[in-house]
Amino acid sequence: MANYVLVHGAWHAGADLQGVASHIQAIGHDVHTPTVKGNGPHDSKMVGLSEAIESIVQYLEETASEDIILVGHSSGGMIITGVADRSPHRIRRLAYWNAYVPNDGESIQDMTSPQVVAAIEALAAERVDGSVMLPFPLFREAFINDGDLETAQKAYKMLNPQPMQTFRDKIRLSTNPADMNVGKSYINCTEDTVASHSYPWHPRLSEKLGLFRLVQIPGSHEIGFTHPDRIARAIIEAGRD
Amino acid sequence: MANYVLVHGAWHAGADLQGVASHIQAIGHDVHTPTVKGNGPHDSKMVGLSEAIESIVQYLEETASEDIILVGHSSGGMIITGVADRSPHRIRRLAYWNAYVPNDGESIQDMTSPQVVAAIEALAAERVDGSVMLPFPLFREAFINDGDLETAQKAYKMLNPQPMQTFRDKIRLSTNPADMNVGKSYINCTEDTVASHSYPWHPRLSEKLGLFRLVQIPGSHEIGFTHPDRIARAIIEAGRD
Amino acid sequence: MANYVLVHGAWHAGADLQGVASHIQAIGHDVHTPTVKGNGPHDSKMVGLSEAIESIVQYLEETASEDIILVGHSSGGMIITGVADRSPHRIRRLAYWNAYVPNDGESIQDMTSPQVVAAIEALAAERVDGSVMLPFPLFREAFINDGDLETAQKAYKMLNPQPMQTFRDKIRLSTNPADMNVGKSYINCTEDTVASHSYPWHPRLSEKLGLFRLVQIPGSHEIGFTHPDRIARAIIEAGRD
Repeated sequence: MANYVLVHGAWHAGADLQGVASHIQAIGHDVHTPTVKGNGPHDSKMVGLSEAIESIVQYLEETASEDIILVGHSSGGMIITGVADRSPHRIRRLAYWNAYVPNDGESIQDMTSPQVVAAIEALAAERVDGSVMLPFPLFREAFINDGDLETAQKAYKMLNPQPMQTFRDKIRLSTNPADMNVGKSYINCTEDTVASHSYPWHPRLSEKLGLFRLVQIPGSHEIGFTHPDRIARAIIEAGRD
Repeated sequence: MANYVLVHGAWHAGADLQGVASHIQAIGHDVHTPTVKGNGPHDSKMVGLSEAIESIVQYLEETASEDIILVGHSSGGMIITGVADRSPHRIRRLAYWNAYVPNDGESIQDMTSPQVVAAIEALAAERVDGSVMLPFPLFREAFINDGDLETAQKAYKMLNPQPMQTFRDKIRLSTNPADMNVGKSYINCTEDTVASHSYPWHPRLSEKLGLFRLVQIPGSHEIGFTHPDRIARAIIEAGRD
Repeated sequence: MANYVLVHGAWHAGADLQGVASHIQAIGHDVHTPTVKGNGPHDSKMVGLSEAIESIVQYLEETASEDIILVGHSSGGMIITGVADRSPHRIRRLAYWNAYVPNDGESIQDMTSPQVVAAIEALAAERVDGSVMLPFPLFREAFINDGDLETAQKAYKMLNPQPMQTFRDKIRLSTNPADMNVGKSYINCTEDTVASHSYPWHPRLSEKLGLFRLVQIPGSHEIGFTHPDRIARAIIEAGRD
């Protein structure tokens, strides 16, 4: 049985992935869903990208995890790339799930369309603690388009403000993902419109992985809430040898 | 329960959508499928776009419809955009189903590839009453590719000649769709090749809506005949709050 | 009942398509899966494209096949195009299945991205008999991404080295596919990453067919091994009138 570590995206925390994890655990796999620093209930919102990455590096050291299938959702793609660069000996395969794939020197904002960057910066300017929050109408239409209103409202209540600096910081890597000596997969949910389909997750970002395995399924960015069983199966297809 | 008005596309009439409507009604929703002026059995084929739009504006006034989820298929996207501009108080949400999304001053031909415009104009030149008709081989391969021959023939017999001027007329809008203060959804049938996939419905036209909800399902342009239950479910997912 | 001839792609042989054929035969259709010259167990690997095409032209003559639905997978698209050009009277419909669609004077390499051409040529340079072979990691990730490891290994063992010249030779056609007077379909497996999705099978190559019928299904390039029932159904939808 395999050893999965699932890294959540912006505005989320590890607990949000419990629904997905339980479906993977039911097959007999080991699954962990740590919370990235900056998304914990008492964390400062001034956390930057390197601190966020370092929190998962430390988590893997404390748990002495090895032979991991490391899955990153959305901005979690930055985290797993940084972790794989710092702790390659712990990783069996990287699986990006509608996730950013950075090369050395790139930030999330560098991989985002100028219109969205401007919108996110405007939202961040409304707050004073270094964080940014999603308005519900945006979340409901563009993030969880495949859910009903009740599911959308329930999911929205679980969100927490995202440290804005994690979007702006450029990652430092000694090796770019295409050159990393681990297996790589990309899961693309075909109705994920967080990256607009004229500036899409796949193949725009996925192909930065070099040789990779594509898994595609129907679903929105928040498929973890709307169809946790379906994304769990996709994670298993992405993670297997 | 919600109040749906489904507006058919070119060459069709309201009755063609009865199969779809019955699946939505079965859940308890109210559904109406008016025929746009120019597609009725005794209508002149010299009808232009503004007359076509006006016929649905009047239909909504006569039926005193409010809080409508207004769905437009194909060229019905022109109609629902025009109706929403003239009667915004009646609309809860616009749902475009592989439909044209016009800004002020645009015609269907303006949103169509030059090769297809030329082909349509050549077909129109074969007729003398101001209409254009689809040859069966084109309909069978490009419109109803997911149906069997019997379904294709049955659907083809229901078509009526389309007033050509509705393709050429430029719409007049006081507000473009992206700025309209209603919910917006786009349903994309992934095997719809009426707009070629190198010049596609989505995201080329859908993203003109600004913030919108994407619903995608397998199916051809004529899914209303081939899988009415599937498009009915998609319309409900597109139309709900 | 219809008469299907399925032409395999590079590295494969007719026997590899038996799983697919049996699902089509079960419905009552006639199905044949000849092996293209150069892929038989005792064939020279110096075979070029015209010899490969000629072997299927001869097969159809020997079997006196008529009214054929001629299906080509991958590089089999070159074969069926050449056969249709030489023996148009035998063909009812051409169905391309994630296949190359050549115009007169084009080779497979001409329709392949420069990076992949370079990679294939480098692999060919490792061998001395005129053939090229796929390394297992490339096959596992990019060709059979929707299979488990056991299926991937089993499929890999069935491969045979491909005559490299069949990739380099430019086809000679008297009529390009768009102008051929037969029905045309294109089956696109949506997770087929043998052609990268930034330089894709569909619509880049499919639209060279002119008027054609699109059938799309989930699946990798090796869906013949991973989901033979699903591709069999797609072939029937592509092949029917």
